[in-house]
Amino acid sequence: MPAPLQFHFDFSSPYGYMGAEKIEALAARHGRAVDWHPMLLGVAFKTTGSQPLTTIPLKGDYTKHDVPRSARFHGVALNMPSKFPIATQAPARIVLWQRERDAARCGALVKTLYRAYFVDNRDIGDPDIAAEVAATAGADRDGARAAIDDPAWKDALRREVEAAIAKGVFGSPFLFIDGEPFWGIDRFDQVERWLAQGGF
Amino acid sequence: MPAPLQFHFDFSSPYGYMGAEKIEALAARHGRAVDWHPMLLGVAFKTTGSQPLTTIPLKGDYTKHDVPRSARFHGVALNMPSKFPIATQAPARIVLWQRERDAARCGALVKTLYRAYFVDNRDIGDPDIAAEVAATAGADRDGARAAIDDPAWKDALRREVEAAIAKGVFGSPFLFIDGEPFWGIDRFDQVERWLAQGGF
Repeated sequence: MPAPLQFHFDFSSPYGYMGAEKIEALAARHGRAVDWHPMLLGVAFKTTGSQPLTTIPLKGDYTKHDVPRSARFHGVALNMPSKFPIATQAPARIVLWQRERDAARCGALVKTLYRAYFVDNRDIGDPDIAAEVAATAGADRDGARAAIDDPAWKDALRREVEAAIAKGVFGSPFLFIDGEPFWGIDRFDQVERWLAQGGF
Repeated sequence: MPAPLQFHFDFSSPYGYMGAEKIEALAARHGRAVDWHPMLLGVAFKTTGSQPLTTIPLKGDYTKHDVPRSARFHGVALNMPSKFPIATQAPARIVLWQRERDAARCGALVKTLYRAYFVDNRDIGDPDIAAEVAATAGADRDGARAAIDDPAWKDALRREVEAAIAKGVFGSPFLFIDGEPFWGIDRFDQVERWLAQGGF
């Protein structure tokens, strides 16, 4: 079986959410699995000199319009959360913790957390809420809650983010097919052709 | 006949070039014409705090990879010019001058200038070269050359760029369908559906 797609995302990214909703089916059409890599975009923004899209003049107004339109286009349910953006260390650490315990459950966990935020307006940046939501995806609530404050998982997330930036990740979603980088759900058409043809 | 698509572009933008190559056929499939609006991205970047993509850490390296790959994906010939980015006042003023004389020839003129830069490595930022290239698209060479230095066309370009920013244009390509904004050639899939369905 060919290598899994490496899918990088930030839980505060609406395009990352849309990508998470679509990537497994896309990968499966080409016999691929997905490896899930939580990202902290704020750290990458220090390198690129960027900031959250919605706060940028002109681009912010466009983004607020483009996000719901893109969700409709991709057939993904979305309600912009009342608190946006949020710090995403809590859900990111839970994913790393779950990935070590049972990587096969990561996809369901990521989508459950994303939907809690982008559909049900739950502040998954809050550790208690993040752990509670993770439990609805079958994770051990207390274990997930403890992982958020555990220095070992804090360090694991730091290393995960550093490794992503070292690979060139600066946005969300951002994925690699056998090392080939694709940024944005708007590159999924290229991803599909790349997988079908083995490059182009 | 429904209103023309409003197509905004900067001559130094490779994605704008790809968009210019595709937009007329896309528009024609839905009974639409195209109005051509040259843009100076540098002016918009002062508002958004951005800079040329290729100069941004991480994003620059990705862009250098994504541009030729996107050109292959869209079936558009492209050789990255040796001088990039360039100031694009000269070709932009020629387009405004041509648009007033005969708007129907703007599409051919824009594509000829873009191809000179992104296929044949000609520095269309140079007024003499811009006028010479415009002549190969049927424009009056001396008239085009004179327009570049004419205060009236300098002022016209200033107003064109200000009007675009006032409408929310901050990137290239950037287009409007009956007021609905779409940024990037990677929104052409949404543009196609919007035209087919009258929105979504």
